[in-house]
Amino acid sequence: MDTSLSPLPIEPRLLAIPPVHALQLRLADYDRNSLSLVAPLAPNVNDKGSAFGGSLVSLMTLAAWALLSMKLEDAGHGAEVYVQDSSVRYLAPLYHDLLAVARLGPGQEWGQVIGAFAQRGKARALLRAEIADPAGTLCCTLEGRFVALAPKT
Amino acid sequence: MDTSLSPLPIEPRLLAIPPVHALQLRLADYDRNSLSLVAPLAPNVNDKGSAFGGSLVSLMTLAAWALLSMKLEDAGHGAEVYVQDSSVRYLAPLYHDLLAVARLGPGQEWGQVIGAFAQRGKARALLRAEIADPAGTLCCTLEGRFVALAPKT
Repeated sequence: MDTSLSPLPIEPRLLAIPPVHALQLRLADYDRNSLSLVAPLAPNVNDKGSAFGGSLVSLMTLAAWALLSMKLEDAGHGAEVYVQDSSVRYLAPLYHDLLAVARLGPGQEWGQVIGAFAQRGKARALLRAEIADPAGTLCCTLEGRFVALAPKT
Repeated sequence: MDTSLSPLPIEPRLLAIPPVHALQLRLADYDRNSLSLVAPLAPNVNDKGSAFGGSLVSLMTLAAWALLSMKLEDAGHGAEVYVQDSSVRYLAPLYHDLLAVARLGPGQEWGQVIGAFAQRGKARALLRAEIADPAGTLCCTLEGRFVALAPKT
């Protein structure tokens, strides 16, 4: 993991958000193509002993949000990143810690996303995040459309 | 609001889930056709001063989950209710407390849902939840498919 190009470390930014703090997440990895967030099961467990759906969605959404934010920062652009919509599939219960991995969605290119932002101060991107258990069973997936806007001056 | 037919009050059941407790939600209303959950903004605020997306999704999902659970309980059926998938649209930022209202989705009938469960111990339902601000501006919507299963004995 190398976050040295990021002007503001992403993990403290996330943890400053009260409901994110409750998730007890931390940044697990960022390799410029994917970003992973991890959170322990205990504060995110539901009444069935598995991971709470709201925590799964939050972690996947935040991983995608953080990936787009960091890619733009790596390219020298500060941006406000918003999620516009998302589709979530709950495939299997998760009885372990939550590890969400976000990547760019199908048919998307980072060069185009960053180029659009550089030209117009605005870019849209489809991102995909997923959470699998330690055996590799896919537990949930998220596809979300995000928009990045240049900060208002 | 009348929850007297419910064998297990829904609010304590929800609050027993650690990440739900963090939302500080409470049951605002249940009139047998809709169910409303409310949560204060402070523990659910994001870095932009508006409601955090993960809290919005959680509250909408829980309202729909609670509505289906309570409708089945009102009909005398204990059930395990699971969300299978959901689509969320984020339409406008919310700078107020969160009030999520859940109803049965378009084309759905409670009689059919409850009848299917009574016959087969299993039912599927499409539910819709939304959060508007006090002025009535719709801030986000969720459509989710849920399944209710008879508890394993």
